[in-house]
Amino acid sequence: MLYPKPLEKLIDSYQKLPGIGEKSAERLALASLNFSQEDLANFAQSLIDCKSKLTRCITCGHIAADEKCSICQDDTRKKNIICILEDFKNVFAFEKSGNYKGCYHVLGGLISPIDNITPDDININGLISRIKNNPDTELIIALKPSVEGETTTLYIKKIVEKYKVKVSRLAYGIPVGADFDYLDEVTLDRALDDRKMLD
Amino acid sequence: MLYPKPLEKLIDSYQKLPGIGEKSAERLALASLNFSQEDLANFAQSLIDCKSKLTRCITCGHIAADEKCSICQDDTRKKNIICILEDFKNVFAFEKSGNYKGCYHVLGGLISPIDNITPDDININGLISRIKNNPDTELIIALKPSVEGETTTLYIKKIVEKYKVKVSRLAYGIPVGADFDYLDEVTLDRALDDRKMLD
Repeated sequence: MLYPKPLEKLIDSYQKLPGIGEKSAERLALASLNFSQEDLANFAQSLIDCKSKLTRCITCGHIAADEKCSICQDDTRKKNIICILEDFKNVFAFEKSGNYKGCYHVLGGLISPIDNITPDDININGLISRIKNNPDTELIIALKPSVEGETTTLYIKKIVEKYKVKVSRLAYGIPVGADFDYLDEVTLDRALDDRKMLD
Repeated sequence: MLYPKPLEKLIDSYQKLPGIGEKSAERLALASLNFSQEDLANFAQSLIDCKSKLTRCITCGHIAADEKCSICQDDTRKKNIICILEDFKNVFAFEKSGNYKGCYHVLGGLISPIDNITPDDININGLISRIKNNPDTELIIALKPSVEGETTTLYIKKIVEKYKVKVSRLAYGIPVGADFDYLDEVTLDRALDDRKMLD
Protein backbone atom coordinates (compact mmCIF):
# COMPACT_ATOMS: atom_id res chain seq x y z
CA MET A 1 0.00 0.00 0.00
CA LEU A 2 1.63 3.18 -1.25
CA TYR A 3 -0.41 5.79 0.67
CA PRO A 4 -1.51 5.83 4.32
CA LYS A 5 -5.21 4.99 4.67
CA PRO A 6 -6.56 8.55 5.29
CA LEU A 7 -4.72 9.83 2.22
CA GLU A 8 -5.89 6.87 0.14
CA LYS A 9 -9.51 7.67 1.02
CA LEU A 10 -9.08 11.31 0.07
CA ILE A 11 -7.57 10.31 -3.29
CA ASP A 12 -10.57 8.04 -3.90
CA SER A 13 -12.95 10.92 -3.21
CA TYR A 14 -11.18 13.30 -5.56
CA GLN A 15 -11.17 10.62 -8.23
CA LYS A 16 -14.97 10.51 -8.21
CA LEU A 17 -15.01 14.02 -9.72
CA PRO A 18 -15.36 14.21 -13.50
CA GLY A 19 -12.14 14.81 -15.41
CA ILE A 20 -9.99 13.93 -12.38
CA GLY A 21 -7.89 10.84 -13.03
CA GLU A 22 -5.61 8.93 -10.68
CA LYS A 23 -2.62 11.24 -11.14
CA SER A 24 -4.66 14.43 -10.65
CA ALA A 25 -6.43 12.97 -7.63
CA GLU A 26 -3.07 12.19 -6.03
CA ARG A 27 -1.83 15.70 -6.75
CA LEU A 28 -4.96 17.31 -5.29
CA ALA A 29 -4.95 15.08 -2.19
CA LEU A 30 -1.29 15.83 -1.48
CA ALA A 31 -2.00 19.53 -2.00
CA SER A 32 -4.89 19.29 0.49
CA LEU A 33 -2.37 18.26 3.16
CA ASN A 34 -0.90 21.74 2.87
CA PHE A 35 -4.27 23.39 3.59
CA SER A 36 -4.75 25.01 6.97
CA GLN A 37 -7.01 23.19 9.43
CA GLU A 38 -9.56 25.97 8.94
CA ASP A 39 -9.57 25.76 5.14
CA LEU A 40 -10.04 21.99 5.34
CA ALA A 41 -12.93 22.34 7.77
CA ASN A 42 -14.55 24.95 5.51
CA PHE A 43 -14.08 22.74 2.47
CA ALA A 44 -15.62 19.76 4.28
CA GLN A 45 -18.53 21.84 5.56
CA SER A 46 -19.29 23.31 2.14
CA LEU A 47 -19.37 19.81 0.64
CA ILE A 48 -21.99 18.81 3.20
CA ASP A 49 -23.90 22.10 2.78
CA CYS A 50 -24.04 21.96 -1.01
CA LYS A 51 -26.47 19.09 -0.71
CA SER A 52 -28.28 19.79 2.54
CA LYS A 53 -28.73 23.56 2.22
CA LEU A 54 -29.72 23.64 -1.44
CA THR A 55 -33.17 22.73 -2.63
CA ARG A 56 -35.16 23.21 -5.83
CA CYS A 57 -37.12 26.41 -6.46
CA ILE A 58 -40.83 25.53 -6.21
CA THR A 59 -41.59 27.80 -9.17
CA CYS A 60 -38.91 27.06 -11.76
CA GLY A 61 -36.95 24.03 -10.53
CA HIS A 62 -33.60 25.86 -10.40
CA ILE A 63 -31.38 25.21 -7.37
CA ALA A 64 -32.06 27.60 -4.55
CA ALA A 65 -31.05 28.30 -0.98
CA ASP A 66 -34.64 29.22 -0.12
CA GLU A 67 -38.08 28.06 -1.24
CA LYS A 68 -37.75 30.25 -4.32
CA CYS A 69 -34.54 30.84 -6.27
CA SER A 70 -32.94 34.27 -6.40
CA ILE A 71 -34.17 34.80 -9.97
CA CYS A 72 -37.83 34.06 -9.18
CA GLN A 73 -37.52 36.33 -6.12
CA ASP A 74 -36.09 39.17 -8.20
CA ASP A 75 -38.83 41.69 -9.00
CA THR A 76 -36.81 43.25 -11.82
CA ARG A 77 -37.00 40.04 -13.88
CA LYS A 78 -39.80 39.77 -16.40
CA LYS A 79 -42.05 37.03 -15.07
CA ASN A 80 -43.88 36.58 -18.38
CA ILE A 81 -40.79 35.52 -20.36
CA ILE A 82 -39.83 31.98 -19.48
CA CYS A 83 -36.76 30.26 -20.90
CA ILE A 84 -37.13 26.46 -20.78
CA LEU A 85 -33.91 24.57 -20.00
CA GLU A 86 -32.93 20.96 -19.53
CA ASP A 87 -30.69 21.36 -16.50
CA PHE A 88 -30.09 23.95 -13.77
CA LYS A 89 -26.46 24.20 -14.93
CA ASN A 90 -27.75 25.80 -18.13
CA VAL A 91 -29.24 28.62 -16.03
CA PHE A 92 -25.74 29.67 -14.97
CA ALA A 93 -24.59 29.71 -18.60
CA PHE A 94 -27.47 32.06 -19.50
CA GLU A 95 -26.96 34.23 -16.44
CA LYS A 96 -23.30 34.69 -17.29
CA SER A 97 -24.20 36.26 -20.62
CA GLY A 98 -26.06 38.80 -18.48
CA ASN A 99 -28.46 40.00 -21.17
CA TYR A 100 -31.48 37.82 -20.46
CA LYS A 101 -33.97 39.53 -18.16
CA GLY A 102 -36.74 36.91 -18.09
CA CYS A 103 -37.16 33.87 -15.87
CA TYR A 104 -36.39 30.19 -16.34
CA HIS A 105 -38.06 26.85 -16.15
CA VAL A 106 -35.82 23.84 -15.50
CA LEU A 107 -37.20 20.55 -16.86
CA GLY A 108 -34.62 18.33 -15.18
CA GLY A 109 -34.38 16.05 -18.22
CA LEU A 110 -35.55 15.48 -21.78
CA ILE A 111 -38.23 13.18 -23.15
CA SER A 112 -36.52 9.99 -24.33
CA PRO A 113 -38.64 6.92 -25.18
CA ILE A 114 -35.47 4.81 -25.48
CA ASP A 115 -34.46 5.61 -21.89
CA ASN A 116 -38.08 5.33 -20.75
CA ILE A 117 -38.29 9.03 -19.87
CA THR A 118 -41.84 10.21 -20.51
CA PRO A 119 -43.31 13.74 -20.24
CA ASP A 120 -44.45 12.82 -16.72
CA ASP A 121 -40.85 12.28 -15.62
CA ILE A 122 -39.79 15.85 -16.35
CA ASN A 123 -41.06 19.12 -14.90
CA ILE A 124 -43.73 19.89 -17.57
CA ASN A 125 -46.72 20.01 -15.22
CA GLY A 126 -45.03 22.79 -13.31
CA LEU A 127 -44.67 24.69 -16.56
CA ILE A 128 -48.37 24.28 -17.43
CA SER A 129 -49.46 25.64 -14.08
CA ARG A 130 -47.23 28.69 -14.59
CA ILE A 131 -48.74 29.60 -17.96
CA LYS A 132 -52.31 28.36 -17.49
CA ASN A 133 -53.73 31.71 -16.47
CA ASN A 134 -51.13 33.93 -18.13
CA PRO A 135 -51.83 34.06 -21.88
CA ASP A 136 -49.37 36.93 -22.42
CA THR A 137 -46.43 34.67 -21.53
CA GLU A 138 -43.62 34.01 -24.01
CA LEU A 139 -41.86 30.66 -23.82
CA ILE A 140 -38.33 30.42 -25.20
CA ILE A 141 -37.41 26.77 -25.60
CA ALA A 142 -33.63 26.39 -25.22
CA LEU A 143 -32.98 22.67 -25.41
CA LYS A 144 -30.02 21.08 -27.12
CA PRO A 145 -30.47 20.16 -30.80
CA SER A 146 -30.48 16.39 -30.26
CA VAL A 147 -33.28 13.90 -30.96
CA GLU A 148 -34.38 14.14 -27.32
CA GLY A 149 -34.14 17.92 -27.32
CA GLU A 150 -36.25 18.28 -30.45
CA THR A 151 -38.79 15.70 -29.28
CA THR A 152 -39.22 17.64 -26.06
CA THR A 153 -39.42 20.95 -27.93
CA LEU A 154 -42.18 19.64 -30.21
CA TYR A 155 -44.05 18.08 -27.28
CA ILE A 156 -44.02 21.34 -25.30
CA LYS A 157 -45.05 23.35 -28.37
CA LYS A 158 -48.03 21.06 -28.88
CA ILE A 159 -49.16 20.83 -25.28
CA VAL A 160 -49.11 24.59 -24.66
CA GLU A 161 -50.98 25.40 -27.89
CA LYS A 162 -54.34 25.74 -26.16
CA TYR A 163 -53.02 28.36 -23.72
CA LYS A 164 -52.35 30.78 -26.61
CA VAL A 165 -48.88 31.68 -25.35
CA LYS A 166 -46.08 32.73 -27.71
CA VAL A 167 -43.49 29.96 -28.19
CA SER A 168 -40.04 30.36 -29.75
CA ARG A 169 -36.86 28.33 -29.76
CA LEU A 170 -33.24 29.48 -29.78
CA ALA A 171 -31.77 30.19 -33.22
CA TYR A 172 -29.60 27.47 -34.70
CA GLY A 173 -26.60 28.76 -36.58
CA ILE A 174 -22.93 29.49 -36.74
CA PRO A 175 -21.31 29.96 -33.31
CA VAL A 176 -19.55 33.32 -32.94
CA GLY A 177 -15.85 32.99 -33.68
CA ALA A 178 -16.24 29.72 -35.59
CA ASP A 179 -14.12 28.89 -38.64
CA PHE A 180 -16.13 27.66 -41.63
CA ASP A 181 -13.54 24.95 -42.34
CA TYR A 182 -14.45 23.19 -39.13
CA LEU A 183 -18.23 23.61 -39.16
CA ASP A 184 -20.27 20.44 -39.55
CA GLU A 185 -22.82 20.20 -42.37
CA VAL A 186 -25.83 19.95 -40.06
CA THR A 187 -24.99 23.28 -38.42
CA LEU A 188 -24.48 24.90 -41.83
CA ASP A 189 -27.81 23.50 -43.05
CA ARG A 190 -29.57 24.85 -39.96
CA ALA A 191 -27.88 28.24 -40.35
CA LEU A 192 -29.17 28.37 -43.95
CA ASP A 193 -32.68 27.42 -42.86
CA ASP A 194 -32.70 30.02 -40.08
CA ARG A 195 -31.14 32.76 -42.22
CA LYS A 196 -32.17 36.30 -41.38
CA MET A 197 -33.05 39.00 -43.89
CA LEU A 198 -30.88 42.09 -43.77
CA ASP A 199 -32.96 45.22 -43.91
CA MET B 1 -24.80 36.95 -7.21
CA LEU B 2 -24.74 34.16 -9.76
CA TYR B 3 -24.56 31.14 -7.44
CA PRO B 4 -26.47 30.40 -4.22
CA LYS B 5 -24.27 30.92 -1.14
CA PRO B 6 -23.53 27.23 -0.33
CA LEU B 7 -22.43 26.61 -3.92
CA GLU B 8 -20.34 29.79 -3.94
CA LYS B 9 -18.46 28.59 -0.85
CA LEU B 10 -17.78 25.20 -2.39
CA ILE B 11 -16.42 26.86 -5.55
CA ASP B 12 -14.11 28.99 -3.38
CA SER B 13 -12.78 25.87 -1.65
CA TYR B 14 -12.09 24.05 -4.91
CA GLN B 15 -10.35 27.13 -6.23
CA LYS B 16 -7.79 26.94 -3.41
CA LEU B 17 -6.41 23.74 -4.96
CA PRO B 18 -3.37 24.15 -7.21
CA GLY B 19 -4.11 24.12 -10.93
CA ILE B 20 -7.86 24.64 -10.38
CA GLY B 21 -9.02 27.96 -11.81
CA GLU B 22 -12.43 29.58 -11.63
CA LYS B 23 -13.95 27.61 -14.50
CA SER B 24 -12.71 24.25 -13.22
CA ALA B 25 -13.83 25.05 -9.67
CA GLU B 26 -17.33 25.79 -10.96
CA ARG B 27 -17.37 22.56 -12.93
CA LEU B 28 -16.20 20.51 -9.93
CA ALA B 29 -18.65 22.18 -7.54
CA LEU B 30 -21.59 21.59 -9.87
CA ALA B 31 -20.46 17.99 -10.29
CA SER B 32 -20.34 17.60 -6.50
CA LEU B 33 -24.07 18.34 -6.42
CA ASN B 34 -24.60 15.06 -8.27
CA PHE B 35 -22.72 13.08 -5.60
CA SER B 36 -24.75 10.89 -3.28
CA GLN B 37 -25.15 12.09 0.30
CA GLU B 38 -22.86 9.25 1.39
CA ASP B 39 -20.09 10.11 -1.08
CA LEU B 40 -20.19 13.75 0.01
CA ALA B 41 -20.00 12.78 3.68
CA ASN B 42 -17.04 10.49 2.94
CA PHE B 43 -15.30 13.20 0.96
CA ALA B 44 -15.81 15.71 3.79
CA GLN B 45 -14.62 13.23 6.41
CA SER B 46 -11.49 12.31 4.46
CA LEU B 47 -10.60 16.00 4.12
CA ILE B 48 -10.78 16.34 7.91
CA ASP B 49 -8.95 13.06 8.48
CA CYS B 50 -6.08 13.82 6.11
CA LYS B 51 -4.86 16.42 8.58
CA SER B 52 -5.99 15.02 11.91
CA LYS B 53 -5.18 11.33 11.41
CA LEU B 54 -1.83 11.77 9.70
CA THR B 55 1.33 12.58 11.59
CA ARG B 56 5.06 12.50 10.83
CA CYS B 57 7.09 9.30 11.28
CA ILE B 58 9.37 9.84 14.30
CA THR B 59 12.20 8.05 12.50
CA CYS B 60 12.21 9.40 8.95
CA GLY B 61 9.76 12.33 8.86
CA HIS B 62 7.52 10.76 6.20
CA ILE B 63 3.75 11.09 6.70
CA ALA B 64 2.34 8.20 8.69
CA ALA B 65 -0.93 7.01 10.18
CA ASP B 66 0.96 5.67 13.23
CA GLU B 67 4.02 6.73 15.17
CA LYS B 68 6.20 5.12 12.52
CA CYS B 69 5.49 5.13 8.79
CA SER B 70 4.74 1.90 6.95
CA ILE B 71 8.21 1.87 5.39
CA CYS B 72 10.09 2.17 8.69
CA GLN B 73 7.79 -0.54 10.12
CA ASP B 74 8.53 -2.88 7.23
CA ASP B 75 11.17 -5.45 8.27
CA THR B 76 11.99 -6.37 4.67
CA ARG B 77 13.35 -2.86 3.98
CA LYS B 78 17.11 -2.38 4.38
CA LYS B 79 17.46 -0.08 7.36
CA ASN B 80 21.08 0.78 6.57
CA ILE B 81 20.34 2.36 3.19
CA ILE B 82 18.79 5.80 3.66
CA CYS B 83 17.62 7.95 0.79
CA ILE B 84 17.52 11.63 1.76
CA LEU B 85 14.62 13.61 0.26
CA GLU B 86 13.37 17.17 0.47
CA ASP B 87 9.66 16.43 0.79
CA PHE B 88 7.45 13.48 1.73
CA LYS B 89 5.85 13.70 -1.70
CA ASN B 90 9.16 12.55 -3.18
CA VAL B 91 8.86 9.31 -1.18
CA PHE B 92 5.78 8.37 -3.19
CA ALA B 93 7.64 9.01 -6.46
CA PHE B 94 10.43 6.63 -5.36
CA GLU B 95 7.98 4.03 -4.04
CA LYS B 96 6.16 4.00 -7.36
CA SER B 97 9.31 2.94 -9.20
CA GLY B 98 9.18 -0.04 -6.85
CA ASN B 99 12.88 -0.95 -7.10
CA TYR B 100 14.25 0.83 -4.07
CA LYS B 101 14.39 -1.42 -1.00
CA GLY B 102 16.04 0.92 1.50
CA CYS B 103 14.50 3.53 3.81
CA TYR B 104 14.05 7.28 3.56
CA HIS B 105 14.81 10.43 5.46
CA VAL B 106 12.62 13.44 4.76
CA LEU B 107 14.29 16.81 5.41
CA GLY B 108 11.15 18.89 5.04
CA GLY B 109 13.03 21.65 3.22
CA LEU B 110 16.39 22.72 1.81
CA ILE B 111 19.04 25.03 3.22
CA SER B 112 18.52 28.48 1.73
CA PRO B 113 20.34 31.47 3.23
CA ILE B 114 18.28 33.86 1.07
CA ASP B 115 15.03 32.55 2.57
CA ASN B 116 16.62 32.37 6.02
CA ILE B 117 16.39 28.55 6.14
CA THR B 118 19.36 27.24 8.09
CA PRO B 119 20.41 23.59 8.74
CA ASP B 120 18.57 23.83 12.09
CA ASP B 121 15.27 24.45 10.28
CA ILE B 122 15.35 21.14 8.42
CA ASN B 123 15.39 17.60 9.77
CA ILE B 124 19.19 17.07 9.82
CA ASN B 125 19.55 16.34 13.54
CA GLY B 126 17.20 13.40 13.12
CA LEU B 127 19.46 12.10 10.37
CA ILE B 128 22.56 12.39 12.55
CA SER B 129 20.98 10.39 15.35
CA ARG B 130 20.04 7.67 12.86
CA ILE B 131 23.59 7.21 11.56
CA LYS B 132 25.61 8.07 14.69
CA ASN B 133 26.06 4.49 15.84
CA ASN B 134 25.65 2.79 12.46
CA PRO B 135 28.86 3.24 10.47
CA ASP B 136 27.78 0.71 7.83
CA THR B 137 24.98 3.00 6.66
CA GLU B 138 24.82 4.26 3.07
CA LEU B 139 23.25 7.66 2.48
CA ILE B 140 21.84 8.40 -0.97
CA ILE B 141 21.23 12.12 -1.29
CA ALA B 142 18.36 12.71 -3.72
CA LEU B 143 17.79 16.45 -3.70
CA LYS B 144 16.91 18.52 -6.73
CA PRO B 145 19.81 19.99 -8.69
CA SER B 146 19.15 23.62 -7.68
CA VAL B 147 21.41 25.98 -5.70
CA GLU B 148 19.53 25.05 -2.50
CA GLY B 149 19.64 21.34 -3.33
CA GLU B 150 23.37 21.36 -3.92
CA THR B 151 24.07 23.51 -0.87
CA THR B 152 22.15 21.04 1.27
CA THR B 153 23.88 18.07 -0.38
CA LEU B 154 27.35 19.55 0.32
CA TYR B 155 26.36 20.45 3.89
CA ILE B 156 25.14 16.92 4.64
CA LYS B 157 28.21 15.37 3.02
CA LYS B 158 30.47 17.49 5.24
CA ILE B 159 28.57 17.03 8.51
CA VAL B 160 28.37 13.22 8.23
CA GLU B 161 32.06 12.83 7.33
CA LYS B 162 33.12 11.93 10.86
CA TYR B 163 30.63 9.05 11.08
CA LYS B 164 32.42 7.21 8.25
CA VAL B 165 29.22 6.38 6.41
CA LYS B 166 29.08 5.99 2.63
CA VAL B 167 27.50 8.95 0.87
CA SER B 168 26.32 9.08 -2.73
CA ARG B 169 24.01 11.31 -4.71
CA LEU B 170 21.65 10.47 -7.55
CA ALA B 171 23.18 10.47 -11.04
CA TYR B 172 22.58 13.55 -13.12
CA GLY B 173 21.99 12.84 -16.79
CA ILE B 174 19.67 12.40 -19.68
CA PRO B 175 16.12 11.47 -18.69
CA VAL B 176 14.93 8.22 -20.26
CA GLY B 177 12.92 8.92 -23.39
CA ALA B 178 14.33 12.42 -23.86
CA ASP B 179 15.03 13.88 -27.27
CA PHE B 180 18.50 15.46 -27.60
CA ASP B 181 17.04 18.40 -29.51
CA TYR B 182 15.15 19.54 -26.44
CA LEU B 183 17.79 18.87 -23.76
CA ASP B 184 19.19 21.93 -22.01
CA GLU B 185 22.97 22.48 -21.97
CA VAL B 186 23.33 22.11 -18.21
CA THR B 187 21.82 18.63 -18.27
CA LEU B 188 24.07 17.63 -21.17
CA ASP B 189 27.12 19.00 -19.32
CA ARG B 190 26.17 17.03 -16.19
CA ALA B 191 25.58 13.88 -18.25
CA LEU B 192 29.07 14.27 -19.71
CA ASP B 193 30.61 14.78 -16.25
CA ASP B 194 28.80 11.76 -14.83
CA ARG B 195 29.53 9.53 -17.86
CA LYS B 196 29.89 5.83 -17.11
CA MET B 197 32.55 3.53 -18.55
CA LEU B 198 31.21 0.62 -20.56
CA ASP B 199 32.97 -2.57 -19.60
